[in-house]
Amino acid sequence: MLTLTANQWNLVYNVFSFGLVSMLACTIYTLVSQARVLPKYRNALVMSSMVTFIAGYHYWRIFNSFSESSEGMAVKVSGDQGAFNEAYRYVDWLLTVPLLLVEVIAVLALAKEVSKSLIMRLVPASAAMIALGYPGEISNDQNTQILYGVLSTLPFLYILYVLFVELGKSLDRQPEGVAATVGRLRLLLIATWGVYPVSYILGMGEGMASADQFVGVQVGYTIADVLAKCVFGLTILKIARMKSMAEGMKDDH
Amino acid sequence: MLTLTANQWNLVYNVFSFGLVSMLACTIYTLVSQARVLPKYRNALVMSSMVTFIAGYHYWRIFNSFSESSEGMAVKVSGDQGAFNEAYRYVDWLLTVPLLLVEVIAVLALAKEVSKSLIMRLVPASAAMIALGYPGEISNDQNTQILYGVLSTLPFLYILYVLFVELGKSLDRQPEGVAATVGRLRLLLIATWGVYPVSYILGMGEGMASADQFVGVQVGYTIADVLAKCVFGLTILKIARMKSMAEGMKDDH
Repeated sequence: MLTLTANQWNLVYNVFSFGLVSMLACTIYTLVSQARVLPKYRNALVMSSMVTFIAGYHYWRIFNSFSESSEGMAVKVSGDQGAFNEAYRYVDWLLTVPLLLVEVIAVLALAKEVSKSLIMRLVPASAAMIALGYPGEISNDQNTQILYGVLSTLPFLYILYVLFVELGKSLDRQPEGVAATVGRLRLLLIATWGVYPVSYILGMGEGMASADQFVGVQVGYTIADVLAKCVFGLTILKIARMKSMAEGMKDDH
Repeated sequence: MLTLTANQWNLVYNVFSFGLVSMLACTIYTLVSQARVLPKYRNALVMSSMVTFIAGYHYWRIFNSFSESSEGMAVKVSGDQGAFNEAYRYVDWLLTVPLLLVEVIAVLALAKEVSKSLIMRLVPASAAMIALGYPGEISNDQNTQILYGVLSTLPFLYILYVLFVELGKSLDRQPEGVAATVGRLRLLLIATWGVYPVSYILGMGEGMASADQFVGVQVGYTIADVLAKCVFGLTILKIARMKSMAEGMKDDH
């Protein structure tokens, strides 16, 4: 049991609700904006809708789990039935993080072989990154936490290498403005993905010892998710619009 | 605990339900009306749909929160788990108020630089306005309430300046009738946004002391929300229709 103050409890509760509604609104936004980009970019947009839809589902679950595992602002974090289920986040990331990366490749509409090669490396690396983080997250032992934290960082660094070095080579052939926006997208990705390890480190120690840690981890993860999924998705829409217009779609579309 | 009379309790309950269904109906209305405006105005319309969607979500939560925190018409407003959660309104406003302002700029289809410059000023100002109101709303101390009330008014005045002085310069180039409708939109905005500070002041004092105060604040906020989001959104649709027709879309659309 972790006993939160009233302000802490309400902060976490409202931050979860904020995450939930942001994901849902973003899903509808990208779904109804499909007609505003050329057909070849709609797949990237649908993937973005699916990322926020999956995340919205998980925030709905997380919100309910937090509410139902609390009694008088004491949150049950034991890992037993009825406790706050942190694993929703990892199920979410296992699905959404590979999708997010495929989305970036899809919106660039690179040559088929280049796309395929990038996807074949980014998807397994991102899945490995999430899967390796989970044993550390649920462990109560600091050495295990450090071990899996480091293991999970290796695929993360590989992803950065692919995005910055390999993908960088393909950006020269993009229309004006697109390379700059993709550059900002990568920076957004690094800045927001950087929050996850910070939240992970914040949560380290023997079994989520303090209420402060718990609040920091939950608020940190949620803000990072909103930036990495909603803001990311809207940037994908923007890139798809820029490319559609560069390829002759009328400006009044 | 605040004990309401049966009439008061039912008034609040039904006003919340009214707010909820108005937001949902307006969301669907603007979503299915997209084809009735030129493609370039659809983004403004989608933003309007998202504003009412986000507000609908929050009214659903507020309605449930009110019902679940009441026992025999005594409403728990302590701020603990299970109490009436006033913060839903602030999460709502934090998302919808910036969107509302971007919507106005988007429907005018101004030159890119003008749009960008207006948005870069209106969005941070509106977020600051909401964020500065919240500490006052949750405080029980009158001096804190006054301090944050005043601080929150500063960005509000800045928004009015941008909308009336800066935006006014761009209205001359709009088609006939549009400038007048935008003028009415701004008046609607001032009239409805004026309700929020009144409700805020109504709620001041030591911890929502009376049932009358509570009822006044909730009814006031809800009516203001319906005017500022639904009526506002339908006005945006009207402006988009006028501009579409001025630009050659056939009247039978």
